[in-house]
Amino acid sequence: MEGFRVLEIKKSVFENNDREADKLREELKKEKTFLLNLMSSPGSGKTTTLKATIAALKDEMRIGVMEADIDSDVDAATIEKTGAKVIQLHTGGMCHLDAGMTRQGLEGLGTDNVDFAILENVGNLVCPAEFDTGAVKNAMILSVPEGHDKPLKYPLMFSICDVLLINKIDVMPYFDFDLEACKQYVTKLNPNIKIIPISARTGEGIEEWAEWLRQQVKAWNE
Amino acid sequence: MEGFRVLEIKKSVFENNDREADKLREELKKEKTFLLNLMSSPGSGKTTTLKATIAALKDEMRIGVMEADIDSDVDAATIEKTGAKVIQLHTGGMCHLDAGMTRQGLEGLGTDNVDFAILENVGNLVCPAEFDTGAVKNAMILSVPEGHDKPLKYPLMFSICDVLLINKIDVMPYFDFDLEACKQYVTKLNPNIKIIPISARTGEGIEEWAEWLRQQVKAWNE
Repeated sequence: MEGFRVLEIKKSVFENNDREADKLREELKKEKTFLLNLMSSPGSGKTTTLKATIAALKDEMRIGVMEADIDSDVDAATIEKTGAKVIQLHTGGMCHLDAGMTRQGLEGLGTDNVDFAILENVGNLVCPAEFDTGAVKNAMILSVPEGHDKPLKYPLMFSICDVLLINKIDVMPYFDFDLEACKQYVTKLNPNIKIIPISARTGEGIEEWAEWLRQQVKAWNE
Repeated sequence: MEGFRVLEIKKSVFENNDREADKLREELKKEKTFLLNLMSSPGSGKTTTLKATIAALKDEMRIGVMEADIDSDVDAATIEKTGAKVIQLHTGGMCHLDAGMTRQGLEGLGTDNVDFAILENVGNLVCPAEFDTGAVKNAMILSVPEGHDKPLKYPLMFSICDVLLINKIDVMPYFDFDLEACKQYVTKLNPNIKIIPISARTGEGIEEWAEWLRQQVKAWNE
């Protein structure tokens, strides 16, 4: 039997999402909880990357994961096996999470014993980019099979993220993915973004990603 | 210099999208224009599949393509090289197309000399599923690297499509993709869906897909 909770998220009642997001961040700052918003297309490897991330950091910090999905529980079931605290959020067809919905998730998860909270957003490169969730940092994953032209097609998502993980680099030989062109497209949109090529499956690049996270969590608590 | 037109799509003014979609289909029926709505995640190979589809059918019917994208023109530039009639639609950040927006696109494309019109929808497995575009048939692509569990996570999209192309089967050996499990998930949601495994890159399965399209276009004109 699965031990995680499933929470049906309600539509937010707040009219000003940006204000609500700032308020949530202030509260997280006081609680010393760092919140990461992880976004990507369906199937780019968010959950597999989370598994690798948890394995790298679980002995150093208390991790809590919110798995947002329209309907299923498959991701929370996967993350539960890592030993991390996890809650499944059902968005009821909604294509993104805003700050009010994220707050519902954090309350469901419980953050008083969580140093590092992660929101795995709905798989979607469009709508989640438009809503500040209240996260301290925004991360996104682009996977090699999706192609290096995606920054041209979904510019807002690449513009609002602090870090881009380029995942599935182990299958690079089988795809026409131009890593340098991709980096150029991305840095043109967002000169300050950190780009880390990884393979969640083989573990390549995960230590660099974990180190980036360590620094962010540390900076948030100073 | 590029010869295709770029159309900035406006928000629809119609309150009842389903009624507007039905009206558009009636008009297309009179004009003998078959409209296909093609949906998928970003990077699943919609444009490459379209190239292969146009190559297979261009000597039998007059094809027109609407490339919907939030911002860029890269897809229309690619399709223009096939010789098919093409227009680039910019959705201005909107994550889907409804019937009113599709109508704007069809008017921009011009359908009086088009037997087979294709709408390449915004790359998104969530929002486009919620809006009837007025298309005669809905098609979607799921690519092997995205994983076989996607029907569990984006059930509405798989439920409303008439045909599912499982693309990139040439890279099946490099991914943990269970084709039989995927088919089971999909047919449980949608018993009548046609499933065609393809590789747009190698051409595998394209003839079966082209034959399915021939039958649909023929049936529409009877």
